[in-house]
Amino acid sequence: MGNTFGNLFRLTTFGESHGKYIGGVIDGCPSNIEIDFESIQNKLNRRKPGQSKITTQRNENDKVEFLSGIFEGKTLGTPIGFIIKNKDAKSKDYLHLKNTYRPSHADFTYQAKYGIRDYRGGGRASARETVCRVVAGAIAEQILNQKGIQLFAYVSSVGKIKLKKHYQDLDLSNTYNNIVRCPEMSCANEMINEIKKVAKDGDTIGGEITAVAKNIPAGIGEPVFDKLSATLAKAMLSINAVHSFKYGFHNRDISSAKGSQVNDVLINSAGVTETNFSGGIVGGISNGNDIYFTVSFKPVSTIMKDQKTINKDGNKIKIAGKGRHDACVVPRAVPIVESMMSLCLLDYCLLNKN
Amino acid sequence: MGNTFGNLFRLTTFGESHGKYIGGVIDGCPSNIEIDFESIQNKLNRRKPGQSKITTQRNENDKVEFLSGIFEGKTLGTPIGFIIKNKDAKSKDYLHLKNTYRPSHADFTYQAKYGIRDYRGGGRASARETVCRVVAGAIAEQILNQKGIQLFAYVSSVGKIKLKKHYQDLDLSNTYNNIVRCPEMSCANEMINEIKKVAKDGDTIGGEITAVAKNIPAGIGEPVFDKLSATLAKAMLSINAVHSFKYGFHNRDISSAKGSQVNDVLINSAGVTETNFSGGIVGGISNGNDIYFTVSFKPVSTIMKDQKTINKDGNKIKIAGKGRHDACVVPRAVPIVESMMSLCLLDYCLLNKN
Amino acid sequence: MGNTFGNLFRLTTFGESHGKYIGGVIDGCPSNIEIDFESIQNKLNRRKPGQSKITTQRNENDKVEFLSGIFEGKTLGTPIGFIIKNKDAKSKDYLHLKNTYRPSHADFTYQAKYGIRDYRGGGRASARETVCRVVAGAIAEQILNQKGIQLFAYVSSVGKIKLKKHYQDLDLSNTYNNIVRCPEMSCANEMINEIKKVAKDGDTIGGEITAVAKNIPAGIGEPVFDKLSATLAKAMLSINAVHSFKYGFHNRDISSAKGSQVNDVLINSAGVTETNFSGGIVGGISNGNDIYFTVSFKPVSTIMKDQKTINKDGNKIKIAGKGRHDACVVPRAVPIVESMMSLCLLDYCLLNKN
Amino acid sequence: MGNTFGNLFRLTTFGESHGKYIGGVIDGCPSNIEIDFESIQNKLNRRKPGQSKITTQRNENDKVEFLSGIFEGKTLGTPIGFIIKNKDAKSKDYLHLKNTYRPSHADFTYQAKYGIRDYRGGGRASARETVCRVVAGAIAEQILNQKGIQLFAYVSSVGKIKLKKHYQDLDLSNTYNNIVRCPEMSCANEMINEIKKVAKDGDTIGGEITAVAKNIPAGIGEPVFDKLSATLAKAMLSINAVHSFKYGFHNRDISSAKGSQVNDVLINSAGVTETNFSGGIVGGISNGNDIYFTVSFKPVSTIMKDQKTINKDGNKIKIAGKGRHDACVVPRAVPIVESMMSLCLLDYCLLNKN
Repeated sequence: MGNTFGNLFRLTTFGESHGKYIGGVIDGCPSNIEIDFESIQNKLNRRKPGQSKITTQRNENDKVEFLSGIFEGKTLGTPIGFIIKNKDAKSKDYLHLKNTYRPSHADFTYQAKYGIRDYRGGGRASARETVCRVVAGAIAEQILNQKGIQLFAYVSSVGKIKLKKHYQDLDLSNTYNNIVRCPEMSCANEMINEIKKVAKDGDTIGGEITAVAKNIPAGIGEPVFDKLSATLAKAMLSINAVHSFKYGFHNRDISSAKGSQVNDVLINSAGVTETNFSGGIVGGISNGNDIYFTVSFKPVSTIMKDQKTINKDGNKIKIAGKGRHDACVVPRAVPIVESMMSLCLLDYCLLNKN
Repeated sequence: MGNTFGNLFRLTTFGESHGKYIGGVIDGCPSNIEIDFESIQNKLNRRKPGQSKITTQRNENDKVEFLSGIFEGKTLGTPIGFIIKNKDAKSKDYLHLKNTYRPSHADFTYQAKYGIRDYRGGGRASARETVCRVVAGAIAEQILNQKGIQLFAYVSSVGKIKLKKHYQDLDLSNTYNNIVRCPEMSCANEMINEIKKVAKDGDTIGGEITAVAKNIPAGIGEPVFDKLSATLAKAMLSINAVHSFKYGFHNRDISSAKGSQVNDVLINSAGVTETNFSGGIVGGISNGNDIYFTVSFKPVSTIMKDQKTINKDGNKIKIAGKGRHDACVVPRAVPIVESMMSLCLLDYCLLNKN
Repeated sequence: MGNTFGNLFRLTTFGESHGKYIGGVIDGCPSNIEIDFESIQNKLNRRKPGQSKITTQRNENDKVEFLSGIFEGKTLGTPIGFIIKNKDAKSKDYLHLKNTYRPSHADFTYQAKYGIRDYRGGGRASARETVCRVVAGAIAEQILNQKGIQLFAYVSSVGKIKLKKHYQDLDLSNTYNNIVRCPEMSCANEMINEIKKVAKDGDTIGGEITAVAKNIPAGIGEPVFDKLSATLAKAMLSINAVHSFKYGFHNRDISSAKGSQVNDVLINSAGVTETNFSGGIVGGISNGNDIYFTVSFKPVSTIMKDQKTINKDGNKIKIAGKGRHDACVVPRAVPIVESMMSLCLLDYCLLNKN
Repeated sequence: MGNTFGNLFRLTTFGESHGKYIGGVIDGCPSNIEIDFESIQNKLNRRKPGQSKITTQRNENDKVEFLSGIFEGKTLGTPIGFIIKNKDAKSKDYLHLKNTYRPSHADFTYQAKYGIRDYRGGGRASARETVCRVVAGAIAEQILNQKGIQLFAYVSSVGKIKLKKHYQDLDLSNTYNNIVRCPEMSCANEMINEIKKVAKDGDTIGGEITAVAKNIPAGIGEPVFDKLSATLAKAMLSINAVHSFKYGFHNRDISSAKGSQVNDVLINSAGVTETNFSGGIVGGISNGNDIYFTVSFKPVSTIMKDQKTINKDGNKIKIAGKGRHDACVVPRAVPIVESMMSLCLLDYCLLNKN
């Protein structure tokens, strides 16, 4: 359980951080779709380690190799198998973790669940797994784009530096013009400085990503337990280090809002509303307005400081701060959020065809 | 799609707000469990309408009738079918909505998805559906209790009135001693007054519920897409009016935290940590500490004020504020949050038996 | 597990043979379908006990009551809950079975799996459960009919009396003109006599049902594990007493056929073939020709003779032949086969819409 | 849809016959299992092409490469990804099929469903896919063996040559001592001669495989729709060329049996019965006796004779008999039947742990 996402467009992933390969299988991809391979690779490059001064220096080119399901450039409708080589895994760097559980890492919980773990680089719990989500998400996004749907995500906060403007007031095409993935340059610079400062201290910091989907037609979603909002929440919370999800309501506090202030008045039969506190989803089903939500990431647990912990015998020990890591995860997480959003939305579009 | 929750302990619900009955089927309930029917009814009473001055006056006794799966007081392991009569549905009160889409209600989205809807009382989109979740959740909770697991939920904010203390500093056994379901009496009184004031204005207000699970053993959860945290998020966002989910990190802002401040240091081989910013779940799997999270509810969309909207022909009209409703949904939502938490946790405990 | 069938058109059933009600939930029914209730009841009447001299004398009117999902005669797209009362359960007749396991009944296996069972009338293992399949199947069939698809099933053997003609040479509209449900009257009479003779001997006998689906368009089906043929096989083997499934190949022995004799030559681009040994499904996907298959039922295990068995303490005892039962199950199983075929085919038609 | 099998032990496969690789992902494999790689390869060798005079001469060594989920020889509980190279694909041999639909092959149906197909070697519809099932099945079988469960399969007929003895009267350890996989040497020789004769004629022939599982404890299975017998039927019908499934009843005709003749009398509280017409499964749940069933395969559709057919423009053409193929599929299908049986039984054992 746990390694498959989606109902009709379904991604299954496999692979440990320091295994030979990491990969996945996409089942249910519509047939006869011409694949833009360059665009997939671009998306992977935006997630890959070693891409800038503020990301981990692990060096992976993250070239994806497709093994099936695509014939003469087009999807066959059969499963798309793919693999990506783990090239720069420095497993020796992790030998000291063989018998140690790092604070706030999944070392202890995987050991508790499975009675065994691949201790190298976090094994299956590593965010390296998300490379596979980006492959599938990039394909899903291509299909959504063909339906006229546009997806965006960007960094909206790093530590205490928060982007005050809401997404409608931003030029989202600027997002990838800077290494921190914030569409407003002045704010981006502050964020970059903050990450550098934190990194210099050997520490890490949290952040937030906001995501937007435009041109989703009204009527996409499922009732009750599988509300579109609920599935987006699950998708986002499945990303490593994510601790919260909020949709709609802009920067506003949800719980102190009054009905008279936040009810969205319908103005035409396409479902357009005067305001959009609902975030484009009502009763779990899209209403034709923009869907938007914000996701919070905790600071990376690996820090360059000595920490107390225990070993597998339960003895208290000290663990040295070493290894490669990101001081802030959000810049590289932007394409991951986009990808999980793509997987949800395409799956729900397909579900709506009955 | 959409009306089933869970993998091995699985609830399917059916029913519209003003249909003859609402009901459900629980499949996968462990066999040979002695059912405490009184305790199920108590839980239902805590959710039922008309229970106090601050809830809607719709009057339902919400007596559940079990149709199968229980024999001589014990579960058979076969599906448990159950129904609850809708007694006090005043469908006439909704006739004016036949051709009207209320602001921020699911009228428009259901119509967009299905091309038809039961306009009476919100139909399938009504929170009346959650009565079925409470039946199943109450059974799940009994089974969890037998494993020593304890669940709690309480109102932690209504509008701007926020309970500052964290759950460890509260006596959670007080929660049901007042009608607003807040364990601290002074805060509860403020909340009750706020709700009364808002109701008098013909308005509605949002709120928050915090939930806690104690004595969950380490190792419960699934990796990657089905993280326990992700499934809890989905479960919570599937509840009507919920717009956000956050686990761990107490009242703290996640995104401005630093790794050195919030890493939880392990102190023994049972997984106990010095602090619990992780909220009891690391890498999607329980670590043996308390699981806790907070859920935000938007204000109820039905208000006692005139509002602009459109009818099904797309013409702009005015809709009068009438009908029965809650001015604040959180007091009645406490057993619903408890129930969805129970369904998740029991399902994941059963998944862990391989 | 076990009580749900289908992917997009999904039936969940509940209920024991002697419980108060038996029922089910259909999720995923397309919306805006006008339901022909009389036609559902007609189908139920063809399955119900006590309908003729050759069926069990348990007297149930099997009136279905719909609780949700249908509004002003049309489907809402929301779950259709329904119940049927068990009126003529004579539980006293089963008291002697409380501690006894009947030969070739599921008494022992349910006890082994669940550690508890409802011993009255076979409990959940009773074929009474199939009444719910007929409700859902009848609705599915109405939707298939609107697509031009026609379904047929008929008794093709009882004991050694075998209908030699193949379905193309029969007038299938005659099936329900006799109580044994065989479209050829002379053969039907032989079958009726055989059942009467066996019943008089206090014994029971097996039989076969052949089913045909016409006008299924080419391209319906899924590859590999979920082949349409595989899902039909599962659907049929899920019916009580069914022990085999065979599709295509008419009355011919599959294993002794030669490729040159049974390859179906395509004659036009609609997929029409000269012969139809394939049974309308190739590689798990429909080819546009008739789908047909045959299902074999073992003799009913309840016989009117004394039998040896054991009680729950493992002691050898003798069990008297009593209780109401069918001497041959196939006449009443015809609408059940039709229903399971409908559920499969509609689900697969819906799956094909991507 | 269609490329995943199982609930808790779940196999997803991908790959076309002439793609670069074929592979799969096993999710839900219990952790801490020591894998016997040699035994997996042995199983693959029994399925691989080119292994004897009576199989296709395509030459594949079918070496499986594991990419994840196994660490220091033991399973991690995380997904096991694996690939197998397609080495001897002679795609040029299939160029003439680009625009042609072969009789009784899935060329036409895949084109009808997907609007595109990989015409080389049958693409995804090729039985080459089953190599992945054998990898997963071999792992599942190792786990079942550790529980004391033993699985067997053997060829019980080729054309008109039928093995008359039932499985209890055979020494099943002899099965793999001859190239046709029939445990009785004299019968095996007849079968081998029959296949050679048919092959010399440029024709193909059908056959049957019988399978047996010993030491399955009573109580394994699910009720109603997911009966163990129903899932075995689906698993078997999902194998290329299989057209029928029958469990229990030895070589006997099911439909002409009488209840008094085939009821299995229980003789002790372990569930042992005097006879075993039930085939070890009653009401969908194992009763502790041997599970056995028989599966029929149609003759391979590729024959070495000219055949009439149509091309994609609907024009009638003649297709020449060429390409490599098996004259009879059953010798190589024995490990495939064993594998699908393993996948079912392990999955159901895991489901039974609640």
